[in-house]
Amino acid sequence: MKKGVFFVLSGPSGCGKGTVLKEVLKRGGDSVAYSVSATSRAPRAEETEGKNYYFKTRSEFESLIAAGAFVEYTETYGNYYGTLKSEVEKSMSAGKNIILEIDPVGARNVRREYPDAVLVFLVAPDLEILKQRLKGRGSEDENTFRIRHEAALSEMENATLYDYVVVNDEVSRAADDILAIIRAENLRTKNSIEILSGIKGGKQL
Amino acid sequence: MKKGVFFVLSGPSGCGKGTVLKEVLKRGGDSVAYSVSATSRAPRAEETEGKNYYFKTRSEFESLIAAGAFVEYTETYGNYYGTLKSEVEKSMSAGKNIILEIDPVGARNVRREYPDAVLVFLVAPDLEILKQRLKGRGSEDENTFRIRHEAALSEMENATLYDYVVVNDEVSRAADDILAIIRAENLRTKNSIEILSGIKGGKQL
Repeated sequence: MKKGVFFVLSGPSGCGKGTVLKEVLKRGGDSVAYSVSATSRAPRAEETEGKNYYFKTRSEFESLIAAGAFVEYTETYGNYYGTLKSEVEKSMSAGKNIILEIDPVGARNVRREYPDAVLVFLVAPDLEILKQRLKGRGSEDENTFRIRHEAALSEMENATLYDYVVVNDEVSRAADDILAIIRAENLRTKNSIEILSGIKGGKQL
Repeated sequence: MKKGVFFVLSGPSGCGKGTVLKEVLKRGGDSVAYSVSATSRAPRAEETEGKNYYFKTRSEFESLIAAGAFVEYTETYGNYYGTLKSEVEKSMSAGKNIILEIDPVGARNVRREYPDAVLVFLVAPDLEILKQRLKGRGSEDENTFRIRHEAALSEMENATLYDYVVVNDEVSRAADDILAIIRAENLRTKNSIEILSGIKGGKQL
């Protein structure tokens, strides 16, 4: 069976990753799934174990961190949230593409542990606006320019770690870009090898 | 300005490259263009130099072959047809994606001369049918099986040279696959560097 592909959507805070990811999941249908996270937060009434989250106690969660069981995790308002490697691997083995929204530091870790993961860098629309400004007239508030420019430069340095760069100028267009990436990556020769190796295996029949 | 990407659609004869390419060009809009070929055939009444073809005499064409001016060429019914490197480079420099339909031998040459070209291997639907058969019951006409199987094996060996494998089970679906590949490849970090380097260049302002 064809393995799923592991996609990571990242980018600086404020670039709109969360909104774009929701749109991708809504429109992607069966082509991509969000993986269920683990959390140390108490379940809410309507939440189901293994559907909304894997619920862990704080000490269970910390043991899992120590055991290197997470692809990435964060602590927010005293609660842990993280993606279990076992969950990612289960989905991929079942042939499902998964997509995670991870901050740039986490994305770097994913690249190290999953060299075949496909990393997408979402660029804030500001970067495009800035580009227009730089191209246009030279008159510009010096300070505003410098601040935005420094931010853009640090974004740029991150971007070279990634396979793809998507400009989030419009959510639906950015989501279409990501859906095209998901479709294309599943057609890569290395991911199609089972189409062909099914034939090769047949030689021994 | 962003350079265009050079796409090659190839595959064994009978896989339906021509039909799929027409569909891609029809639906791709401005995202991709077919490059104008050169030919030693005489122009027909309705044909325009530089629009339908670049018309060359036979000896002009052969001088161009000797000078290594072609990406690929073939001789059919005594007439030469070929793609000029200058034409490909002109389109790419103008930011246009181009797509050529080339046989597997030509595709290998393109890979050598244009390492950044994106090669798509179109697989005849037979391969998929064969796969189903191999997975299904073992009873099968022995001879038919062997012939189709040998063809599939040689297709498979070609496929590893390519970046993508598209199964032509249905023309419109295969065309959508290729359009997704074109869209995704234009989002690759190496092809987006001008979005980011515009900012870097701005530092010197």
